[in-house]
Order: sequence, then structure tokens, then C-alpha cells
Amino acid sequence: MLFRLEKRDYPSIREQSFAYGRGSCWPLASQKFTERIMDWIKRISPEFPPPSLEDNRADADRVITGLQQALKSTCLTFPLDLMKKLPSFLRQHGYRIEVVLHRGTNRWHVIDFFPAGQKASIYGLAIDLGSSTIAVRLVDLQDHLVKEEISFLNPQVEIGKDILTRIHVATQGMGLERLQALVLNRLNEHIQALTAKHAIKAERVSALCVAGNTTMTHFFLGLDPGGIFREPYIPAVNKVPLIRAGALGLAVNSRAPVFVFPNVGSYFGGDLIAGILASGFHRKKAVSILVDVGTNAEVVLGNEEWLVACAGAAGPALEGGVSSMGMMAGPGVIDKVAIDTGFGVWSIRTIGGGRPVGICGSGLIDLAACLFLAGMIDQKGKFVKARCGDRFGVKEGIAHILIVSEADSGTGKDLVLSQPEIDSLMRSKAAMYTILVTISRMVNLSFKDVHSIYLAGTFGTFIDPNSAITLGMIPDLPHTVYRPLGNSSLAGANRALLSVEDQLEVTDIQSKITYVELNVNQDFMSLFSAAKFIPHTDETLFPSVKIPDAL
Amino acid sequence: MLFRLEKRDYPSIREQSFAYGRGSCWPLASQKFTERIMDWIKRISPEFPPPSLEDNRADADRVITGLQQALKSTCLTFPLDLMKKLPSFLRQHGYRIEVVLHRGTNRWHVIDFFPAGQKASIYGLAIDLGSSTIAVRLVDLQDHLVKEEISFLNPQVEIGKDILTRIHVATQGMGLERLQALVLNRLNEHIQALTAKHAIKAERVSALCVAGNTTMTHFFLGLDPGGIFREPYIPAVNKVPLIRAGALGLAVNSRAPVFVFPNVGSYFGGDLIAGILASGFHRKKAVSILVDVGTNAEVVLGNEEWLVACAGAAGPALEGGVSSMGMMAGPGVIDKVAIDTGFGVWSIRTIGGGRPVGICGSGLIDLAACLFLAGMIDQKGKFVKARCGDRFGVKEGIAHILIVSEADSGTGKDLVLSQPEIDSLMRSKAAMYTILVTISRMVNLSFKDVHSIYLAGTFGTFIDPNSAITLGMIPDLPHTVYRPLGNSSLAGANRALLSVEDQLEVTDIQSKITYVELNVNQDFMSLFSAAKFIPHTDETLFPSVKIPDAL
Repeated sequence: MLFRLEKRDYPSIREQSFAYGRGSCWPLASQKFTERIMDWIKRISPEFPPPSLEDNRADADRVITGLQQALKSTCLTFPLDLMKKLPSFLRQHGYRIEVVLHRGTNRWHVIDFFPAGQKASIYGLAIDLGSSTIAVRLVDLQDHLVKEEISFLNPQVEIGKDILTRIHVATQGMGLERLQALVLNRLNEHIQALTAKHAIKAERVSALCVAGNTTMTHFFLGLDPGGIFREPYIPAVNKVPLIRAGALGLAVNSRAPVFVFPNVGSYFGGDLIAGILASGFHRKKAVSILVDVGTNAEVVLGNEEWLVACAGAAGPALEGGVSSMGMMAGPGVIDKVAIDTGFGVWSIRTIGGGRPVGICGSGLIDLAACLFLAGMIDQKGKFVKARCGDRFGVKEGIAHILIVSEADSGTGKDLVLSQPEIDSLMRSKAAMYTILVTISRMVNLSFKDVHSIYLAGTFGTFIDPNSAITLGMIPDLPHTVYRPLGNSSLAGANRALLSVEDQLEVTDIQSKITYVELNVNQDFMSLFSAAKFIPHTDETLFPSVKIPDAL
Repeated sequence: MLFRLEKRDYPSIREQSFAYGRGSCWPLASQKFTERIMDWIKRISPEFPPPSLEDNRADADRVITGLQQALKSTCLTFPLDLMKKLPSFLRQHGYRIEVVLHRGTNRWHVIDFFPAGQKASIYGLAIDLGSSTIAVRLVDLQDHLVKEEISFLNPQVEIGKDILTRIHVATQGMGLERLQALVLNRLNEHIQALTAKHAIKAERVSALCVAGNTTMTHFFLGLDPGGIFREPYIPAVNKVPLIRAGALGLAVNSRAPVFVFPNVGSYFGGDLIAGILASGFHRKKAVSILVDVGTNAEVVLGNEEWLVACAGAAGPALEGGVSSMGMMAGPGVIDKVAIDTGFGVWSIRTIGGGRPVGICGSGLIDLAACLFLAGMIDQKGKFVKARCGDRFGVKEGIAHILIVSEADSGTGKDLVLSQPEIDSLMRSKAAMYTILVTISRMVNLSFKDVHSIYLAGTFGTFIDPNSAITLGMIPDLPHTVYRPLGNSSLAGANRALLSVEDQLEVTDIQSKITYVELNVNQDFMSLFSAAKFIPHTDETLFPSVKIPDAL
């Protein structure tokens, strides 16, 4: 038995980021940044004469008139707190100032002013509020380039790894305030480090765009999440009003507007809408599907005319939650497996190339597909003892297969996969496929009619469609149909940060989506049972999968 | 020598207030309150179904849709802090709530919500921010009636009686914050007492309208007043943005909108614009004049098509500032004087009817006019010793006339009027008349063409046109031309509190006014010299004044 440990090359964050730079992201890579994009945030040096006896307009009125001329609009809000510092500021800087504004629904709003002619740019933050990982992009709002992207663990994990626990905590005493403070404080620490690193003053961070699922959005805003997981599943808010960074105590300009992606419902949040925005399939004639797989599988199907969405529990198998060696992607984590059945050679790739310490979702799918093709598990996902050979074992009555021995692992212990863990994966993959079938049936659509299937999220990005098709998790379609999106929630937030049109599109997408509740669908359960086979009880659905001969 | 002390009957505040009640005030007393008035603040009980599995819209979205239907408008802002308390509130009150909103420029804004079906009304405050007296009206926003009107001393007087001292203090260290805190704290004390007295919860006070001169407005908002009294006389702000009561820490609903009347310039403030609004002459074809006399005399001339304004120093003589016995109107203050020259009988009336303790502006004008008609002062305003008789005296080289002897006064001391005090009054009356002549000449208008002359402010209201004409302070026109306005600043604030049309008119008035600087007018000085005679060097201008024979 040999290990070939290869180094997995992730595209560097910088490369990734620059590709997203000008408001585009992967599926729209060919789209060029043009002046069509209407900037959300604008920086203007208004022209106005200094005061005199002949022109003794008030300071604020003078600046406002200059701005109205420059913007060719009289609809302008200049907040009182800025008016307070205006008189001395104007005199100090010889009446030459530069004003930062944001474009609202029907008027401009002044965010701040600075001495004219400063070289420093103005910046924005795109934020993906994941329940386990939070990603932040620092974006230059003038050249639209990403300065840096960071990600870090959501500190709410310390209160509860799963969202239900957090919601329960939120409804007790000061739980909600605590959950909100956790995420805001951690966010502020990282924002401060990020701006310090790039020598950017906090006051020049002038806008934020935030996408998260419904519960994360509620926590972020300090909104009561109590109704989300309780029948009839009512969020406090779907359409979030534009707020100011100061209202949340964020470590940026206190008047920076914060655009929070709206939710469709309790189980379909702003992160998904950001994903749709990033994919751009809501603007195409052809019908596409967007899938975000995690503990919940969220699916949207549609085109430029309509969008249908649903979400269903896929089980924690794909997020490293159940398998004893399961974990989130990171150094030493197995993300790819191949088994040469002829020679019995296992090839295992780990992230970073080090000794294996565990396995992530995409690695687990590869592993299960390989075990099936090698005949080590059968169509029901049960171990075929005879084919497993030495690798098979039983501990405390539970069957397992050895993946990496203690001698080769990075933990000093055997890495094994147990029968219950495979059973859990079987349920997850069955749920995933069933959700896709159900939503397609609802609109009388065959998978063959689907132009693209976008795979969102870290998991979706690194999944090997071959393996997922082998398991019968996703439809047996040409590989070109499958399009990994990366962190599409972050990419969507990045877009909305730069363009008012994209923000309007967000509203449009939100109002266009028809959300269907899967949990109340009887049909779903019989479809689910049929999908708990590899690849499926109806093998004709997966013609490309070569089912190994039984012993 | 006899005193006839009469009781002066002031109309009770309640009577006055109810007369102003339905958005009208004296010159518009005939105008009926009709549905034409578009309420600024609205109270609505939106209709919406409680949530169900079939209708699982978010709480906020459900309420907003209900409001949009009721308001027949989709333009609606629902602030985040209210969304926070919405979910539990809705469940607690069975989804029956009542929402208070205010109508903005192009959208509705939610102020607060309450359980549906409450009997308690909603209230607003109209505030006149005088530099010496602050007046507050508590107004029921539903029936438009005044619940109570109060007035109290502006506590900034302890820092400086005159505005220049206060501005000087404001530009030093924390002076501005101190001045602002003084007025806000005192205001809050009175608001709390007022709402407690009427058993009104602070959160049900949903709107404020504030009118003051430019400097008072700056202090109220914490704006730098440094440029106001320094060439080229630049206020920080003329058009004040709509702010929230919470931003000023006012003891009302923190989201209550605060409408602050705009200024035209350093010497022409929102109190005057409120006065114009209250008088309504800006809506008439005929040309009228509005005069507000204090240390500064502010004058507006115009009609529905144009408005010209100016302001000039009238001297403190008319505000009780210079005369040793001068004081503001109050109990025991002489407000009317008559001298029967035939019998040498002086009739003196005091406010409240008690023993005299001092004299107010209108009393001083009466007194001076009487002294002139009795030949005790000549056309230059100098004492005619022979005519003054026993009342004449000299102390420390300064000539004076006895008004009330120590035996009859309420202070136990002689009340006297000195030559320098009369000289000061002569300058004030000359300034007043010159300002009126100058502004009329600017627009090529004769006083005969003026339909009405509105006298604003407490002083203006109680002035006896006979006496003022005798002194040559105001033009020699039929008495019906003169129309006292009372506290027109407060009346104007009351109007804008109730009606969006009136707020729009305020903007219209402000932008229509052409302000002319008198201090830079050379013509003014020669006109001023000619007016320093009683009634004038050109006696033909005052045909109704019978000049007494010289001795």
C-alpha cells in the first residue's frame, strides 16, 4: 500500500480576488468593467467660491449647492453631525474639500468629507457571514480592485456549532446581544488589523455589503431569531433597511452605509441571493440551477423570467460533522482519493501536501465513490467485507475501514471510516439528489433542459463531479454543465458593494423567488428512499456510472 | 399727582392657544381647518393577516406591506431599532398594532408603534426659541388642539444676556456644548413637567417644530456660531436637515422628527420665517410689511411674488436693556402711560395691576410719547426743564425725570427716566423708522402702498400705534394698517407641526427672500440722522402728530 501525497494548488487569494475585481466573478469572467456600472459610493470635489459680503450663504448651503451642481441632482442629504464640523474644516482647508457620498434610492447621502486632493483612496468591505467561517474582502472603491481577502472562524461557534443551539441561546436572557457582540467584535478586530496593514484610516472605509443566511443576518443585526425555526417559520425581517455602520459599532466610518442582503425566508437567506447575483443566471434565457450544499442544501432553479427555490436538510455528513475523521478544509485534510483496483493502490491527496489528519466533504465523496467502484461498499453503501480485505475491522461492534494507518497519519492514530458514517453520507447524497429532482419536477423540467448547475460554497467548488455522479448525488450530466462558484456569497457582496444596479438586481431577485417548502411534501419521502442507493434504484438515470460486478 | 392703576387683561393662554388651534392664527382667524391640510404625522392601524405556513412572510415585511396598502405608497422607511422589538410585540398584541409615521419629502418614515385601539392621542411640540424667553406649545396631533402653552426664561441668559457674549463663549473651549446643554436640559425639564401634568407618555410625543433666530438655532443644534457675527457673516447652516429628537437627547420619542425652521442669513432667522408663515402675507397680492422689533429690528416687505428682508440694530432701548427701570414684560411692569396735560394727571397701568417696579418697551414708548405731547421733552428728545417742574432732577450730572416716587413704587425706590435713556430710545426709534424707509425705497414703494404692517413679537403685540407714530418710530398710517401678531414665531412653528404644506411653504419662503445688508448702505446714515427728531425733521411725513407749542 502506497501513499502518493500531492500538493494541492489553491489559486492564491490575490489571484482569485483580482479576477473578481471589477465587479465580475467566475461565470461572468468575460464581462468587462464598463462605465455602465453606477457606483454606489462617489467621491467628489465640489466647486464653490469662498464666502464674501456679496455671497454670504451659510457654509453647509454653499457646499450643498456645489454638490448638487456636481451631481446634477438636488436630492441630497447632509447629516447634522457633519454640519457641525464643517465651518472650521472649510476655513482650515481653504474651502477646498472632497466629499464622499452614497447613492440612495432616490437621493444622495453625504458620508464624510476630507481635505481636497488627497491621494488616499476610499474603501469598502464585502462580507460573507458564514455560520462557521466569515470572509471579508477589502475593496478599493475607486479602481474596484480587491486589496485583500481574509477569512476566519465565526466566533459564535464557541456558543454552538449548529445554528439551532445558537438560536436557542439567542432567545434566553442576553443571549442575542452576546451572539451579536461576538461576531461584531471579532469582525472589528479583523477590520482593524486589515486597515492597519494597508495603512488605511477607518474613516475612509465608506461602505459595507453583508451577505449571510437568515439566522446569521438576524444575529448580525441583533434581530430576534425566535420565529425562524418554529412553525410557521417567520423571520423578524426579510428586507433589511439600509443602516449605518455606527448603528452596529463597526470599526469603519460611522456613517458608512451597510447594505445587508435580504432573505427570502427562514431557510433561504441573503447568502443565496448573493450567490445568484454572482452567478448571473437570473439574467439568462436558459434555465440553470444553483446548489449550495452544507448541512442544509439550498437550491434555486430558474432563468431571467422566474426563480424557484427550496431548501432541505442534507445532513451534516458533507460538512465534516459526523465522520470521526471529518473536518473542514485545512492543512493535512484529505480532499481527493483515488483507488487503483487492479493493483490495490490508494492515492490520497491532502491540502498543503502534509500527512493526512482528516477528511473534508469533497474528499469524503471521492472516498465513497472509490470504495463503491472498488466494490468495497455495495449499492446500499454497506461494506463488502471480502473486498475490503485487511482494511476491514470491527470495533465495539461497529464495522469500519482503515483509510490511513497510524504510521502514516499526521495524528499518530488510524484514520478510519465507519459504517454509520457511510450511512449518514448516503442520506445526505440522497437528500441532495431528491431536492434536485423535486424542484425540477415542480416546474416540469428534465435535467437535460438545464443549461448549467452552479455549485456554490467551498464544498461545491472542490467537489469532483465524477465522484458525486458516481454516488448518485447529482444528476448524470456532462461535466461542462457543472460550474463551481467558489465563495459566491462573498462575490455577490463584492458586486453589490460596487454597483447600484447590482443592488437593484438583488431586490429584483428577492422579489422574484418563489420559495417552496420541501418538508411538507409527501412525494419527497418516496423519492428520497429511491435515492438511497448508489447511484440510484433506477440505474438508467446514471448511464455513465459503471456499477462494479458483485462478488 | 394721582395714580390710577388699572388691571391689564391679557387674553388667557388657553384662549389664545385654542384660537391658533386648527393651524390658523390671528391674521388667518377666518380660515377654517379643512381636510386640505396634509398631516405631517399620521397614526395608522395597518391590516394584515397573522402568519401561517401558507403566508410565512417576515414580521417586518408583513407590517410594511400593510402600511404600504394603507398609505397607498411603497415609499416607506422602517428603522432597524423598531424591527428589533417588532417580533415579540406582534405576538404579544395578537398582530394588532397601530403605527405612527411622518411624511417626509418623498417617503413615509415609521416613528413608532403601539398596541392597536389605544385611546391616548399622539402629540407634538411647537417651540419658539427666543434668546430671552422660550415658549413651548403642547399640541394634540389628531384634533390639532393646543393642550397647553408655557414659556420660561432662556437659561443661556446666565452666560450672557446679549447674544454676542454667548457667541464669544461658544467659540471658547466647551462653551458651545455648555450653551447647547443649558437650553436642551431646561427644555427637557419643562417637557417632562408638561407631559407628566397631562399624563402623556414621552414616547407619544411624536414630532417637534422649532423656530429661533440664526444664533439660537445654532446653539440648539450644537452648530459653530463663530462666523455669524464676523465679516462676512456666515452661518454654519441655513437649511437645517430634518433630525431625530434622539440626536439631541430630547425627552420625547427618540425617533420623533424635529423640523427646525431654516435661516436666511446671520441676521434673519427661522423665527422670522415662522412669523411670515403665521401672518400669511406671503400668499397675498397686496404688499405688506412684517416687523419684529427687539435689539435688532427685522423687517420683511413683500407679497405672494417677492419678499425683501433686512435687519438692523435698533438698540436695546426697546427690550428693557438700557433704561434703569427698563425690564421685560411681567407683573408690576408699566406697559401703558397717559398724561393729561391740562390737569397734570399721570395715568400709569401695570401688568397685573400691582405697584410699578419698572417699565417695558411698549410702556417706554407710551411714556416718551406722553412726555413729548406734554412738552416735557422737545423734538430732539431733550428735557424741557420748565415743563417738567418738580419731576425734573439732576443726579451726578445726569438729568432725569421722576416717573414713580419711592412712596408709590413697588421697589421702594424712585423710578426715573434719564436723559441718556431717552437719547437711547431716540436712536432706537430712528433706526426703526429708517429701516422701514430704506427697505421701502429699495423696492420703490411708498408707505401708502402698504396694505398691512404686521407687528411681531411680544413687544410688537402690545405697542400702541398712536404712541409709536407720535415718536415717529413707525409711519403715520391709519391704525387699521397695524396688525399685532403675538408670538408669531410660535404660531408659525405650530402650523408647520401640523401640516406638510406649511413646511413646504417654509422652504418656499426661505428661498424667495432677498436679504439686503443695511449696514453697508451709505444712504442709511443720512436717513437715520433725519429720523432722530420727534416725529421727524420732515414734519409733513407725520401729519397726524400734533407738535406741542414750544415754551
